[in-house]
Amino acid sequence: MESERRELERVNAFSDGVFAIAITLLVLNVEIPSVPGDELASALRALWSDLIAYMIGFAVIGLFWFGHHRLFSRLVRSDGRLVLVDMVLLGLIGVMPFTTGVLGRYDEPIAVALYAANVGIATLVDGCLHLVARADGLEAEGAEHDPHALVLTVVRAGIFFASIPLAYLVSPDVAQYWWLLLIGIVFIRRWG
Amino acid sequence: MESERRELERVNAFSDGVFAIAITLLVLNVEIPSVPGDELASALRALWSDLIAYMIGFAVIGLFWFGHHRLFSRLVRSDGRLVLVDMVLLGLIGVMPFTTGVLGRYDEPIAVALYAANVGIATLVDGCLHLVARADGLEAEGAEHDPHALVLTVVRAGIFFASIPLAYLVSPDVAQYWWLLLIGIVFIRRWG
Amino acid sequence: MESERRELERVNAFSDGVFAIAITLLVLNVEIPSVPGDELASALRALWSDLIAYMIGFAVIGLFWFGHHRLFSRLVRSDGRLVLVDMVLLGLIGVMPFTTGVLGRYDEPIAVALYAANVGIATLVDGCLHLVARADGLEAEGAEHDPHALVLTVVRAGIFFASIPLAYLVSPDVAQYWWLLLIGIVFIRRWG
Amino acid sequence: MESERRELERVNAFSDGVFAIAITLLVLNVEIPSVPGDELASALRALWSDLIAYMIGFAVIGLFWFGHHRLFSRLVRSDGRLVLVDMVLLGLIGVMPFTTGVLGRYDEPIAVALYAANVGIATLVDGCLHLVARADGLEAEGAEHDPHALVLTVVRAGIFFASIPLAYLVSPDVAQYWWLLLIGIVFIRRWG
Repeated sequence: MESERRELERVNAFSDGVFAIAITLLVLNVEIPSVPGDELASALRALWSDLIAYMIGFAVIGLFWFGHHRLFSRLVRSDGRLVLVDMVLLGLIGVMPFTTGVLGRYDEPIAVALYAANVGIATLVDGCLHLVARADGLEAEGAEHDPHALVLTVVRAGIFFASIPLAYLVSPDVAQYWWLLLIGIVFIRRWG
Repeated sequence: MESERRELERVNAFSDGVFAIAITLLVLNVEIPSVPGDELASALRALWSDLIAYMIGFAVIGLFWFGHHRLFSRLVRSDGRLVLVDMVLLGLIGVMPFTTGVLGRYDEPIAVALYAANVGIATLVDGCLHLVARADGLEAEGAEHDPHALVLTVVRAGIFFASIPLAYLVSPDVAQYWWLLLIGIVFIRRWG
Repeated sequence: MESERRELERVNAFSDGVFAIAITLLVLNVEIPSVPGDELASALRALWSDLIAYMIGFAVIGLFWFGHHRLFSRLVRSDGRLVLVDMVLLGLIGVMPFTTGVLGRYDEPIAVALYAANVGIATLVDGCLHLVARADGLEAEGAEHDPHALVLTVVRAGIFFASIPLAYLVSPDVAQYWWLLLIGIVFIRRWG
Repeated sequence: MESERRELERVNAFSDGVFAIAITLLVLNVEIPSVPGDELASALRALWSDLIAYMIGFAVIGLFWFGHHRLFSRLVRSDGRLVLVDMVLLGLIGVMPFTTGVLGRYDEPIAVALYAANVGIATLVDGCLHLVARADGLEAEGAEHDPHALVLTVVRAGIFFASIPLAYLVSPDVAQYWWLLLIGIVFIRRWG
C-alpha cells in the first residue's frame, strides 16, 4: 500500500510538473519587440492577439489541470494503463505552447483548426483517463462520481471539433467566440 | 479530510511550479551576445539594464511566492473559488517574464507602465486570494491573521500604480527607484 | 530514518523535475512558422518531421521516467553513489531536447547517430542506477526484482546502438523504424 | 509544528524547482544548427565547447543542489532570514544558464571571469545559508555537522575567484582546467 501510494504521488508530481511547465512556457510566445523606443507603444499594441491566445491557452491548460487534479485526488493507486493514457494526455498538453502560439500569430482558419483539434483530442484522452481509473478500480471506495462527467467530456470535445468547420465557413474569430460556450458549461456545473 | 488535504497539496505544488518556472524563465531575457570576442566586454556591459530587470523581476516574483507560501501554510483545504482566483494570479505571474523583459530592454515610460500595471493588478488579485481564503473558511482554526495585511496589499498595489504617472511625468528611472519603497515596507513588517 | 526518507524524497522530486522540464522543452523545437497567412498550411505541413521527433522524444523520456519512478518506488533511502549516477543520467536526459531537435530538423545519418548514442548511453547509465541501488542495499526488503531487467536494459541499449550503422549503411528513416522494436519489448514485458 | 513543517517543505519544493529548471535550461544554450545537411557533421563538431560548458554548468548546479539538499534534510523549520538568503542563492543559480552560455560561446578571459564570479559569489551565499541555519537553530537536534564545511566553502569560492586572474594572465582554458581541483575536493570529502 505504502509503495503504491508513493507511485501514485510520483505520477501526480510528474503530471503537475508538465502542466505547470507547459502553462508557463505559453509566455514565450509573446515576444519582446525589437523596435526603436518611440515605436514601442504601437509594437506592444500589435501583441494584443498574442495576449488573447495566452489567456485562452492559460485557461484551457488550467482547466485540464483542474480536472486532472480532481480525478487524482480520488485515486488510491495507479497502474500501467493509467500511466500510459496519462503520458498521451501530457504529450498533447505539452504541444499546446506550440499550437497556442500559432493561434496567436495567425488569423487563419487552419490556426484555429490546429488548436481546436489539439484541445478536442486532449479532451477525449482525458475522458479515457477517467474511464481507465474507473475500469481498473483505482478510485477510493465511496468516491463521489459526477454522473454527467462523460457526457460533459463529449460535449466539451464537440465544442472544439465543431469550431473547425466554423473557422473555415464563417471566420476564425467567430470560432474563437464559440469557445466561450465552455465557460457556460463550467458555470452550469457550478464549478467548486 | 485526507482527500481534501491532497487536493490542497496539489494546488500548492502546481502554484509552486508556476512560480519557480516563471522566476527561472526571467534569465532567458538576458540574451547571450553574438559579437566578435574582443567586443564581448562592452556587449556584456550593455546588458546591465537587463540584469537590473532580472533582479527586480526575481525579487517581485519571490515576494509573491513568499506571500503565497505564507497564506497556504495556514490553509487546511481549498475550494473552487480559491483555485479560480489562484489561476488568475498565476496567469499574471506567468506573464511577468515578458513584462520584465520589456522593462529591461526599453528605457521608455510605457515599459515601466506595463510592468507596474502587471505587478499592481497581481497584487490586488493576491489580496482577493486572502479574502477568499478567509470568507470560505479555508484557514486552520486559530491561524494568526496579520491585521494590517489588507492595508499593506492596497499600499503595495498603490506604489506600483502610482509609478505609472511618475514614469510619464518625471522619468522611467525615477519610477523604478520609487519601487524601492517596497523594501521599506518589507522591513517595517519585520519580515521573518 | 525520517531524515533518510526526506533525502530520498528530494532526489525523487529533483529527478522528476528534470524529467518533466526536459520532456516539456521538447516543444520548443517545433518552431512557430513566420510566413504570410496563405502559406501557413504548407509551412505547418513542413513541420511534420519535427512533430514525429517530438513524439519519439516524448515517448523516450517518458519511458526513462517510468523506469526511474518504478525503481525509486522500491527504494527506502539514497546514498552518494546513487545521487552521482542519477545526476549523470539526468545530464543525459537534459540534453535530449537538443539531440531530439537535431533529429527532427535533419534527415541525415549523423542526426540519427547523435540521438541513438544519447539514448543508448542514457540506457546504460540507467542500468548502472539499478545496479547501484541493489549493490548498496537501498531497496525495501522484499522488493520484487524483475529478473530480466538487466538483460532488457542491454537489449534496449543495443537496439539504439545498432541503429547507428543502420542509419549510415541503409538510411536514416529505416533506422528510426527500427526503434519501433522497443514498443515490442514494452509489450512483451506486459507493461503494467 | 505541523504548519512549520509544511512551510519548510514548500521552501524545499520551490528551491528544488528552481535548481531543476535552471539545470535543464542549460540545454537551450546548445543551439540546433541551421546549415545544409552535408555540413551538419562539422556544425555539430563546432558545438563542442557549448557541450563542455553544458557539462560544467550541469555539474556545478548539481553540486549546489546536492549541498542544498543535504542542508535542508537536517532542518526542522525555516524562518524569514533563511528564505531571504535562499532567494539570493536561487537568484544566482537562476542566472547561471546565461553565464554558462557565455562561457560556452566565447573563449575570452571575461567569459571565464563572469562565470567564476557567478559561481564564487553563489558559493559564499551558500555558506551564509549554512550559517543562518545554525545561528537561528533551524536544524534538528543531534544533526551531524561537518566540522570542515565552512573551510571547504571558502576554499571552493577561492578556487573560482582565483581562476579570474588566471584567465587574464595565463589563458581562459587553463582557468577552466583549474576548476577540476573541485573534483579533488569532492573526493577528499569522500562524497557519499
